[in-house]
Amino acid sequence: MTSYKDLKESCYEANMELPKLGLVVYTFGNVSSVDRDRGVFAIKPSGVPYEKLKPADMVVVDFENKVIEGTMRPSSDTKTHAFLYKHWEEIGGICHTHSTYSVAWAQSQLDIPLFGTTHADHNTSDIPCAPPMADELIEGDYEHNTGQQIVDCFAAKNISYREVEMILIGNHGPFTWGKDAAKAVYNSRVLEEIAKMAFLTMQINPKAPRLKDSLIKKHYDRKHGDGAYYGQGC
Amino acid sequence: MTSYKDLKESCYEANMELPKLGLVVYTFGNVSSVDRDRGVFAIKPSGVPYEKLKPADMVVVDFENKVIEGTMRPSSDTKTHAFLYKHWEEIGGICHTHSTYSVAWAQSQLDIPLFGTTHADHNTSDIPCAPPMADELIEGDYEHNTGQQIVDCFAAKNISYREVEMILIGNHGPFTWGKDAAKAVYNSRVLEEIAKMAFLTMQINPKAPRLKDSLIKKHYDRKHGDGAYYGQGC
Amino acid sequence: MTSYKDLKESCYEANMELPKLGLVVYTFGNVSSVDRDRGVFAIKPSGVPYEKLKPADMVVVDFENKVIEGTMRPSSDTKTHAFLYKHWEEIGGICHTHSTYSVAWAQSQLDIPLFGTTHADHNTSDIPCAPPMADELIEGDYEHNTGQQIVDCFAAKNISYREVEMILIGNHGPFTWGKDAAKAVYNSRVLEEIAKMAFLTMQINPKAPRLKDSLIKKHYDRKHGDGAYYGQGC
Amino acid sequence: MTSYKDLKESCYEANMELPKLGLVVYTFGNVSSVDRDRGVFAIKPSGVPYEKLKPADMVVVDFENKVIEGTMRPSSDTKTHAFLYKHWEEIGGICHTHSTYSVAWAQSQLDIPLFGTTHADHNTSDIPCAPPMADELIEGDYEHNTGQQIVDCFAAKNISYREVEMILIGNHGPFTWGKDAAKAVYNSRVLEEIAKMAFLTMQINPKAPRLKDSLIKKHYDRKHGDGAYYGQGC
Repeated sequence: MTSYKDLKESCYEANMELPKLGLVVYTFGNVSSVDRDRGVFAIKPSGVPYEKLKPADMVVVDFENKVIEGTMRPSSDTKTHAFLYKHWEEIGGICHTHSTYSVAWAQSQLDIPLFGTTHADHNTSDIPCAPPMADELIEGDYEHNTGQQIVDCFAAKNISYREVEMILIGNHGPFTWGKDAAKAVYNSRVLEEIAKMAFLTMQINPKAPRLKDSLIKKHYDRKHGDGAYYGQGC
Repeated sequence: MTSYKDLKESCYEANMELPKLGLVVYTFGNVSSVDRDRGVFAIKPSGVPYEKLKPADMVVVDFENKVIEGTMRPSSDTKTHAFLYKHWEEIGGICHTHSTYSVAWAQSQLDIPLFGTTHADHNTSDIPCAPPMADELIEGDYEHNTGQQIVDCFAAKNISYREVEMILIGNHGPFTWGKDAAKAVYNSRVLEEIAKMAFLTMQINPKAPRLKDSLIKKHYDRKHGDGAYYGQGC
Repeated sequence: MTSYKDLKESCYEANMELPKLGLVVYTFGNVSSVDRDRGVFAIKPSGVPYEKLKPADMVVVDFENKVIEGTMRPSSDTKTHAFLYKHWEEIGGICHTHSTYSVAWAQSQLDIPLFGTTHADHNTSDIPCAPPMADELIEGDYEHNTGQQIVDCFAAKNISYREVEMILIGNHGPFTWGKDAAKAVYNSRVLEEIAKMAFLTMQINPKAPRLKDSLIKKHYDRKHGDGAYYGQGC
Repeated sequence: MTSYKDLKESCYEANMELPKLGLVVYTFGNVSSVDRDRGVFAIKPSGVPYEKLKPADMVVVDFENKVIEGTMRPSSDTKTHAFLYKHWEEIGGICHTHSTYSVAWAQSQLDIPLFGTTHADHNTSDIPCAPPMADELIEGDYEHNTGQQIVDCFAAKNISYREVEMILIGNHGPFTWGKDAAKAVYNSRVLEEIAKMAFLTMQINPKAPRLKDSLIKKHYDRKHGDGAYYGQGC
């Protein structure tokens, strides 16, 4: 009997969205879901195909990377998740994929420019692409350092993880997060769409301008500001 | 008991086409359907996922943006719909999406050139891309002003909404319309295809010429002219 | 009671492949199937959605464009089909679509270069793109003249319709044909794939060379030559 | 009664993955599965549509291209498979497709650069593109010589088939292999994704750098090195 049934269930449900949304091939992705009160998170086991995954397979891990419950090895990216949960205290879920257009931008080592309202509906910054780590960090505790790399990138660019819920790791791929695992997955799907739209925009018009500030503010505020009027307000 | 059952039903059916046609991710789109006799239109409620949508959820609104029936908040774009119904008296339905290729052109701030007969089968103009609004209009009654922006763009380019049933809002995305909500959705799907074909054409041959006038006229007339011979004439 | 039951059935089956293969949106395509002994062909009715199409809806027409059986109006492209059946005596089916990548090449007014063995498995020529017709031909008997345009293009380039079973009409889209309607549809699907591969090839390497002659010959002959050893020989 | 039931079954299952994964149109692909103890392999029959394929249709062939069991003609690429099984003694399955992005790179005659960790998760080299064969080899025993071309390319580039389980044949398409037929198919799907990501990367940033060596090593080793910690270790 597990006392983490609900946590594992929410983690499982969020992971199963990835193949449905076309964000993964084979096992190239993972989602975690946190229980802040108990200081643990559930995460996908490493390398298990989605079609064979069961809620009970989810591995429960604490913020020091210790497996608390589960017979399988957790995702190889577990330390990155743990680092982010530890340092960013308001996030409830994290998603990592190798989705096609997001990876292409990551491999290009370029931020995704804020070209339109689809992007501004979600945040007011270019999507940051973290530069590759120094060799000694790669050769060291790599996945832990990837967490550090993400936190450092946000600090260096002076943006908040509460507003911008997505990043590209240069040459690797996207990490996204949110209030819960479902929102983290939502952000991965939105990022992939923004990445595709920005790619096409630059192909059609290499001189396409960034969205003007008044429109960025308008679209972000109508969804997220004090007077937000998008959605049903609940 | 509603007295708007048929109106809501037609609005619901048209909205449900959007995910089937691949024109939306999550809730990024909305369709409305008008009842001219009663001076109202039904529109999708804001931010409700398509898989949870029911006909009864549709919100009935008049042309002054007053909710006439419905417990949910209408689409955040409702004022744009109201403005267009008020000013363009022959349209019966309106559709707005963030479909990928249409948005890419909108973000490029370029009209879609009339390159071929697929386009000319539907209208005889480049698809207009309205320039971004002035800051004071964005900061004002934004969605109302978006309606004004659309009407002004058609006036400035001297094209008729009766013939060209689609526009790109610069940096935002497409609006389409037609004799009813189903036709408005049809036009969104056609626009997305035209947008993709035009993108590919410019990639293959950056010097691709616009379609010659005789072919524009021929293809448009065989579908829409007095002697039209496409379809079953009903 | 019809005496054209089998002909209509084969025509219907071939038409229904188009949406399954992703070659059409809405009603943008048509297939016909010929009965040489009786001098007639069956063709899709104009503007009827595929999901409503029934075998009995197919229209039987002779080579002079006279409707022999059927209550609906035949495809607006019927005269092009009739012209080709009349002039090219060995073809048994014709297919016309507005498939995305094929149209993009047609709108670019460029032949599709023979870049690889996928192409050479089917024919040994660049896929011809017929130049737009003279204005007086467009303003005249347009669909009849489109048939003439196709036959003239093959004569001008000195290629045989028996080997090259596909063409692009400049600014319009592809026509394909074959021993029967099913083969004509097969050729449309193959053409779309070749068109996409050639587009991508030119994007990756604008200086990509044409396939060398020895490989063109080898791949074409192993499928179509006297000593062909592809398939089960039946 | 066959004594190759299991071999044929594994070959059939692997072949049937190709249409599911979107790697083939019609019959443009084939997979084989080897039985090293008996010195034979099973391979798809030539030109048979996947939807009609049955396990019993698989053809059993030895390494000298002699059909050992089966009433149908084996794939036209059989001699290439036989050559590779004979020369590379540790492979258990081979897959050949004409998947879209892989073919585009092959037609471009360019190696696929190692741009990111998705690629490095699988091997540490650019994906080699073998140059076209000399004319006399094409005109000779072509499919046998294609096997030689693959082996020669790996020798010339000093890479091991045990690590790099994929190649592009210039102007033709990909061959992949692995410990069994299922792994060979997996590699074809991965290659197609890497090919698409690399294409997009070069479009977004023509100066995108190759992945740095420390990251190549890290990602390859965490999946394949002595201290690998990806997957469940079984």
